[in-house]
Amino acid sequence: MKTQLELARDGHISEEMRKVAHAEGIDVEILRQRIAKGTVVIVGGLRQNSQPVGIGDGLGSKVNASIGTSTEIADLGLELRKAAVALESGADTLMELSVGGDLDKIRRTIIEATPLPVGTVPLYQAFCEATERYGDPNKLTEELLFDVLERQCADGVAFMAVHCGINLYAIERLKRQGYRHGGLVSKGGATMVGWMLANERENPLYERFDRVVEILKKYDTVLSLGNGLRAGAIADSLDRAQIQELLINCELAEAAREMDCQVMVEGPGHVPLDEIETSIILEKKMSGGAPYYMLGPLVTDVGAGYDHITAAIGIAMSSRYGADLLCYITPSEHLGLPNEEDVRIGVKAAKVAAHAGDIVKLRGRVAERDLDMSRARRDLDWERQFSFALFGDDARAMRDSRSPGAEHNCTMCGKFCALANANRHFM
Amino acid sequence: MKTQLELARDGHISEEMRKVAHAEGIDVEILRQRIAKGTVVIVGGLRQNSQPVGIGDGLGSKVNASIGTSTEIADLGLELRKAAVALESGADTLMELSVGGDLDKIRRTIIEATPLPVGTVPLYQAFCEATERYGDPNKLTEELLFDVLERQCADGVAFMAVHCGINLYAIERLKRQGYRHGGLVSKGGATMVGWMLANERENPLYERFDRVVEILKKYDTVLSLGNGLRAGAIADSLDRAQIQELLINCELAEAAREMDCQVMVEGPGHVPLDEIETSIILEKKMSGGAPYYMLGPLVTDVGAGYDHITAAIGIAMSSRYGADLLCYITPSEHLGLPNEEDVRIGVKAAKVAAHAGDIVKLRGRVAERDLDMSRARRDLDWERQFSFALFGDDARAMRDSRSPGAEHNCTMCGKFCALANANRHFM
Repeated sequence: MKTQLELARDGHISEEMRKVAHAEGIDVEILRQRIAKGTVVIVGGLRQNSQPVGIGDGLGSKVNASIGTSTEIADLGLELRKAAVALESGADTLMELSVGGDLDKIRRTIIEATPLPVGTVPLYQAFCEATERYGDPNKLTEELLFDVLERQCADGVAFMAVHCGINLYAIERLKRQGYRHGGLVSKGGATMVGWMLANERENPLYERFDRVVEILKKYDTVLSLGNGLRAGAIADSLDRAQIQELLINCELAEAAREMDCQVMVEGPGHVPLDEIETSIILEKKMSGGAPYYMLGPLVTDVGAGYDHITAAIGIAMSSRYGADLLCYITPSEHLGLPNEEDVRIGVKAAKVAAHAGDIVKLRGRVAERDLDMSRARRDLDWERQFSFALFGDDARAMRDSRSPGAEHNCTMCGKFCALANANRHFM
Repeated sequence: MKTQLELARDGHISEEMRKVAHAEGIDVEILRQRIAKGTVVIVGGLRQNSQPVGIGDGLGSKVNASIGTSTEIADLGLELRKAAVALESGADTLMELSVGGDLDKIRRTIIEATPLPVGTVPLYQAFCEATERYGDPNKLTEELLFDVLERQCADGVAFMAVHCGINLYAIERLKRQGYRHGGLVSKGGATMVGWMLANERENPLYERFDRVVEILKKYDTVLSLGNGLRAGAIADSLDRAQIQELLINCELAEAAREMDCQVMVEGPGHVPLDEIETSIILEKKMSGGAPYYMLGPLVTDVGAGYDHITAAIGIAMSSRYGADLLCYITPSEHLGLPNEEDVRIGVKAAKVAAHAGDIVKLRGRVAERDLDMSRARRDLDWERQFSFALFGDDARAMRDSRSPGAEHNCTMCGKFCALANANRHFM
């Protein structure tokens, strides 16, 4: 099977490209050119029940919701309900990040159950299986690792975060730097670093990058170059270890593109407000415009319990400055495994934030929605307000819960409504 | 009584200045100089039970919570509970914006009950009383208007949003502009515009600005120059009508300062992400550095039900670029009168956002808290994490609700904890 990148380079317009162009309201030939250039990727659309989703230059910012079991709470029913809530709340993609229970079964069941493109982090399963078989993640073999990659791709995984950019050179940078205030916070990244140190060996995902690309390409699984050395603390943002890994990931992105594999690059993590733009400029420049997948970012470390809000701030800024796929963060981040309500809150906060960025990044028809909403609001036309609101049902429920006395106003201002008063002079 | 501005200009260091300098961790002489220059104001501290709060250059961004009855829901008990929740959740100031019920009684009761500096919008009460007495807000007399100002100041109101900058010249700009997508959304502003058009008269608050200043100065009530023509729609942001009013408000700020009256300027409203910095630069420049009080801003119009999040994004950006006092927005904005839970959610979202801005704006000891948190997180020291988190009790409750199996990890990653694994190599 040809990847969307190969098809685009051949001048072929696929059914997936048509669907994405239609959903985004852009010309399909322009979309094809961007895919051919590698500034847009299409995830999903490979399975009967999954919708293709476009990510990249000129397209709406997309929101990813991550679910998955942990070693402490492994309940497939809960994960299925979380997947359903993510879809209902407006997530564009879903990452299935289980590390507890029967990992193959959980992944296959989730992929079967959701129309969202599903992403994974294969290092999780690889290290889990190494621990099961050999009692030690550091005993992971290259063969087992690549077997897991292939097994996941064959199941219809739409995109995959693979930690190829952590090489010995990057670890040397981490050592010379001599500090990491927040430590290593990527589960896959930290465990791979441990493996490399224990085995005194190069990362096989870096060393055998051609093999990674070959496997993913075969299934047109989009390669998402993982951010294993990402900052997990504001104070670590843009440190040399992280930039070293980003640089290598950008180099690998170019190589993957040359091999006709669709690819994007992952970013942090924890980033202060004034460094978000820098992170995006750097990734876009060094990778030749590969789509950027930001994990939030969180703009402060002290928001525990409210990290859907610290992430919403980061997501709005990322979206504005050109990031393409934004990972939601739930209120339980740093504290425990998210439940359904956390997923709902996380996705909605992220969607609102991505939209706020998009009205600056994309203007045009995205900003039209805000204009329509403003006019409906000025006209006190509640039905139209609910139709333009991102979450109209929630807005309606909140208004109804305060039972307004009159049809046209609300209980906030009541008879003292600015819009009902002087506005007739200026409309 | 002398205002803090007069005292500072006299070279006198007041008890209030000492308290503020201590709370902010800055040198009291530097604080005095900033107050003398007008780049910092102190609100509150006039009443026995109110704490003085510093607002302005080099101080932490402050969060205001607005409460108050509407014509539809006027329940003093509810407002007292909302005031208590605002305090508990970390609000720095409280605006009492009632327009329903016995306004004098409600205001006095709230001021009595809270240690927070209380602000008001006197035009609300003035128009309410004109409607009661004469059956028409447009029959408001100048005497009644100034009587309300004096009555409110005498009650110990710490700061007052007064709509002085809406003059006939600004209304002419609004007319020439020929549009307002979102209409006029300031209750006080819209009603004053209606009054000016009906009476074919200049705004008395502009025409008799000296009288406004005289009254507020007598009680050292801080004048907050209201934003009556503010944009209530993203598409109206930075329109000429609004900038005209801002310009006049900045001119009046200078005049008030010359008369030894403490003063700040109010900003919008609804502002897209890429115009927040411009709004702040403009206000700071044109006013000679008067503290800027931003109402959010909301960075999209379509977030109804989630406007605490759209405001958190705006607050973080405002705080970062130098705004000084930020008004919270609750989830019920645009939909109904907030209840206690809305107040709690709104204040906490705003506090998290203000902190994210402050770690960039102020760095130093503000950013230290994030660093301490990161280290506690790296060390899996939960008690220290809860002590550095902005809302440690909420964070603890969330972690406990997922009953972690082991003392050191949480249910998010369980045994597969990045921090517990490879980090020993890099700490």
